[in-house]
Amino acid sequence: MEAVKPYKKGCGYSYTLGAFPTYELIKARPETAVEIFIHSSFTDAEELKDLCEKERIPFSVNDKQINRLSDKENVFVVGVFKPFSCKLEKSRRHLVLVNPGNMGNLGTIIRTAAGFSYDDIAIIGNGADVFNPKTVRASMGAVFRTRHELFDDFKAYRERFPEHDIYTFMLDGDTTLRLDTADPKMPYSLVFGNEATGLPPEYKAYGTSIFIPQSEAVDSLNLTIAAGIGMYMFLQKGE
Amino acid sequence: MEAVKPYKKGCGYSYTLGAFPTYELIKARPETAVEIFIHSSFTDAEELKDLCEKERIPFSVNDKQINRLSDKENVFVVGVFKPFSCKLEKSRRHLVLVNPGNMGNLGTIIRTAAGFSYDDIAIIGNGADVFNPKTVRASMGAVFRTRHELFDDFKAYRERFPEHDIYTFMLDGDTTLRLDTADPKMPYSLVFGNEATGLPPEYKAYGTSIFIPQSEAVDSLNLTIAAGIGMYMFLQKGE
Repeated sequence: MEAVKPYKKGCGYSYTLGAFPTYELIKARPETAVEIFIHSSFTDAEELKDLCEKERIPFSVNDKQINRLSDKENVFVVGVFKPFSCKLEKSRRHLVLVNPGNMGNLGTIIRTAAGFSYDDIAIIGNGADVFNPKTVRASMGAVFRTRHELFDDFKAYRERFPEHDIYTFMLDGDTTLRLDTADPKMPYSLVFGNEATGLPPEYKAYGTSIFIPQSEAVDSLNLTIAAGIGMYMFLQKGE
Repeated sequence: MEAVKPYKKGCGYSYTLGAFPTYELIKARPETAVEIFIHSSFTDAEELKDLCEKERIPFSVNDKQINRLSDKENVFVVGVFKPFSCKLEKSRRHLVLVNPGNMGNLGTIIRTAAGFSYDDIAIIGNGADVFNPKTVRASMGAVFRTRHELFDDFKAYRERFPEHDIYTFMLDGDTTLRLDTADPKMPYSLVFGNEATGLPPEYKAYGTSIFIPQSEAVDSLNLTIAAGIGMYMFLQKGE
């Protein structure tokens, strides 16, 4: 194929930077893989080439292409893939991210969600791009193991999934996150806001608003950590 | 004073990048503050100048110095301070970090620890530097709100604090992290390893080894998230 250019949202392809997320691409979403580039100094090339052949994915040793796509020096494998669309499962627990602002955070949250079997992730609004190579990399390839669906606004999400119990995480939430309050019935949705601004006030009316207590020594928790704590606590009694 | 040069470990000073961590420096550790640099385009300069005058900390409008110390464009305040040493409190809960490898992660963990009142943080081995400006920035200034003490190895830490119950977080831990297992008596220590390598196997013998269950879809949790979940779970029944 012709030379792959740096990613732009909507350009029709994206890529994985690094061996680990590339393996995740090939194992979980082989039908979306277009081509794999391997650096001449990559030490485990034979195993990767065998896997590509088995899945009938074109590959080539192409240092120039890797150097063009990667801004870091320790990238030895790049996988080009076609962004794909998913539909969330209506019977499963959902993670809902409203206007996520940072691609590294979005990827880290998707990785945590996959680790805790929140495999269905709604993204509300025009926030960070799930297929940007930075998101894919921060997710360690977990974008290929999860379903994610974009919604223009929360109303559109709610119309599709009217039966989920909604829990919104807010600094002024009414309910403290403890084991007796994190006692959901399936299906349910945990909703988190933007890193800088949190959830808009109207989200308080959408369900149970949850507050993670914290000392006055800090302004707020990091979003990725709040989401990790919320997901884990809600798993303790949930199905 | 003469021009401040970029930070090097052990150079006798460090600095805060940004208004938020600089305010934390002045409020929590004013005696360590050496000088505050304010950019000519900083909009809230009067309030900051008043606080500096009150605390008798020299300040100056100095765009050149800020540009020299900061690699990001949105830094309008820099505070120069002298690294300080602390002693951990022996009656309090401790967070113990073994060979933390990444300054951003170290800062994020310190911020989370401050938020959950784990105010005493032991750092074992020659890992990431708590006073590096990257750590200070990621902590949002929480390095000034916490006590942190360095130990050459875990033995040295244990000799100082023989009475703490030890909980080591390990991928092959014996005990699953649940509310009934996270039931500590004070004082206790939560111990986390390096991002890439975790805790060495010998840490299994040092106390109760704890495992955070996760699906096979991910390799492991991000360290900052595992630490956040561990701290929060151990607060649910703890004092």
